[in-house]
Amino acid sequence: MTDAVSVQTLLQHRQKFPALANKAYFNYGGQGPMPQAALEAIYRSYEYVQGIGPFSEQALAWVLDEANKTREAIAFELAVPPETISITEDVTVGCNIVLWGIDWKKGDRLLISDCEHPGIVATVGEIQRRFGIEVDVCDLMSTLNEGDPIAAINQHLYPDTRLAVLSHILWNNGQVLPLAEIVKACQQNSTKLLIDAAQSVGLLPVNLTELGVDFYAFTGHKWWCGPEGVGGLYVRPEASESLHPTFIGWRSLQYSKAGISWQPDGRRFEVATSAYPLYAGLRAAISAHQQWGSQSERYQQILSLSKYLWQQLSQLPNITCLRKSPPASGLVSFQFTDGSSHRQLVLFLESQGVLLRTIHQPDCVRACVHYFTTTDEIDRLIKFVSKFQIAH
Amino acid sequence: MTDAVSVQTLLQHRQKFPALANKAYFNYGGQGPMPQAALEAIYRSYEYVQGIGPFSEQALAWVLDEANKTREAIAFELAVPPETISITEDVTVGCNIVLWGIDWKKGDRLLISDCEHPGIVATVGEIQRRFGIEVDVCDLMSTLNEGDPIAAINQHLYPDTRLAVLSHILWNNGQVLPLAEIVKACQQNSTKLLIDAAQSVGLLPVNLTELGVDFYAFTGHKWWCGPEGVGGLYVRPEASESLHPTFIGWRSLQYSKAGISWQPDGRRFEVATSAYPLYAGLRAAISAHQQWGSQSERYQQILSLSKYLWQQLSQLPNITCLRKSPPASGLVSFQFTDGSSHRQLVLFLESQGVLLRTIHQPDCVRACVHYFTTTDEIDRLIKFVSKFQIAH
Repeated sequence: MTDAVSVQTLLQHRQKFPALANKAYFNYGGQGPMPQAALEAIYRSYEYVQGIGPFSEQALAWVLDEANKTREAIAFELAVPPETISITEDVTVGCNIVLWGIDWKKGDRLLISDCEHPGIVATVGEIQRRFGIEVDVCDLMSTLNEGDPIAAINQHLYPDTRLAVLSHILWNNGQVLPLAEIVKACQQNSTKLLIDAAQSVGLLPVNLTELGVDFYAFTGHKWWCGPEGVGGLYVRPEASESLHPTFIGWRSLQYSKAGISWQPDGRRFEVATSAYPLYAGLRAAISAHQQWGSQSERYQQILSLSKYLWQQLSQLPNITCLRKSPPASGLVSFQFTDGSSHRQLVLFLESQGVLLRTIHQPDCVRACVHYFTTTDEIDRLIKFVSKFQIAH
Repeated sequence: MTDAVSVQTLLQHRQKFPALANKAYFNYGGQGPMPQAALEAIYRSYEYVQGIGPFSEQALAWVLDEANKTREAIAFELAVPPETISITEDVTVGCNIVLWGIDWKKGDRLLISDCEHPGIVATVGEIQRRFGIEVDVCDLMSTLNEGDPIAAINQHLYPDTRLAVLSHILWNNGQVLPLAEIVKACQQNSTKLLIDAAQSVGLLPVNLTELGVDFYAFTGHKWWCGPEGVGGLYVRPEASESLHPTFIGWRSLQYSKAGISWQPDGRRFEVATSAYPLYAGLRAAISAHQQWGSQSERYQQILSLSKYLWQQLSQLPNITCLRKSPPASGLVSFQFTDGSSHRQLVLFLESQGVLLRTIHQPDCVRACVHYFTTTDEIDRLIKFVSKFQIAH
């Protein structure tokens, strides 16, 4: 494929995403734009449910089928059996299911990094308060450019460390952690591992069966560009029995003549009535990406674009990228070195139709590129950052 | 208003609900049909978000505003301040927030009735397993026609009973519990009270401020006819400090220069990213009901229709209504006395476009009427039940 054809194909692909029509978009780490096909799949679902129900035998069969198909679509992307997937509202709920699902005893230890999301940190704090566990924090922030994340993690794995909670890709600076080595380190210590995959699913190729990670929580609305409100949790079959359902409802249970028991698979961590019509939206979004290319092709394209963005940013005066070499993900975080306000920059850029966000810790601006980002969009971002700098 | 005009008005009102066009609907206790205005509000929200974001300063402001407006709309209907409302995915999540939010100590007692939903019973069982609490079960099933629910509850309120979990309207037989008296009984025993309001919100007038109930969990998708996946929890201000957040995320927290702390209001029990575009759908649904009449007017109409249904059913041979006098709610449960299969009946009725459901405990069929149910629909139900009886 020549470059010209490839650009043409990309521009055609971008037309599937109505949100991309009127802006330069760099907030994939916050929420991805939905393809029109996903929106239409949702609308069709609503109309279908109203037609056959909304509550009926036929509608219940439809709900179960939609949930099954959605677990299958997710499982295919993560290279795991569908039974290992629980559908959740978002990545945070998935993390909470694991964090609360362990039979914590006073004195147990939990390891977390200094780059985890505030919501997860707060959950860990509440578990510490309730059960009297010890919480260790390993320093990954300083390993972005040098140092060894595995050493930082190993340093805090104690005999009583029952769970480690780490991100696959750090949400603040875009660092990709060496997951296979982390799995090995945790297994050697008999420590279960929960991965916050908010930024990795849909960004880089994932084969969870090969990785052997215990718990992997993700969302559909970021890099997968599905609807907000649908995410999931993978639980490795071998780790399933160690995890108890916490928030429980009719979906967690199976009913038979012998009585009521837990669902034998990922459904046991699902609770009750959810926004089922959105499930088709997530599947349509995943399908739109598959039409463009494989996980690996998309990831390579992301790397090529994030390198370009990183290079362009690095050439601007008074700006430093947190990362000193081209990024290994689609997240590019940068700072002003002259004390200019990151928040003012983001507000100015938004007024110009260029969307990105600030991060508080470290204090920086985060721009995300997806495989369908264009160099034109990046050039526009760079142009307006320069304009802002001249004006301030 | 003459009866003819009133029928005309009702038929016009029913046209707002596309699901009612092709069936006789009696499953409001499972899920209510959405007004077209609610569907359109949802679609508009999706398109708006894609236009301004999906992730941007403007989109975040929209999300916060949507959540505020939704808490306000809910709070107005329940006669409470908006700050007391948490938006949840469904009624079960609301119950779980309360059940897990109490600092349980070994030996604490929890009181539940014999008519609570299996999901709630399973959560109580898991809490019992984890914390070593004692669970007492009071018999309300037998108080449907005679006996005193307050006496049944009082009999199981012990000095260590920290929480009672009861439904406002029993989901299996439609009994309306005397909530004011239950609140009084629990307060006298210093027992907190969680009400499962799955069947009451949108069915009967509710003034939670007057009632003084501690926790009231509900959903938008049953009697309010909103989208599945949006519900809520009311926490009485005086009971708020006794309740700790369990599932926690960025929405539970407020960020200031002093650091991160809990949101001061109902938001502290909300977790993370949800299906925000659905919120407008719930508000549109609530508004559609308000346009027809006050809570009290709607409830009176429900009582008039459920009485008619109860009378018609009572006149059929080999059928007995669980309730021996006209119902106080919109739920009418009945049984065959000749051993015919309830499930076969429901499947036959669904094949004829008449939707209702079976209940397992007690083994019965449940038909629900809303204020916009017609006597024609009820007559159709009766006709097909008779047909089924003749064929079997």
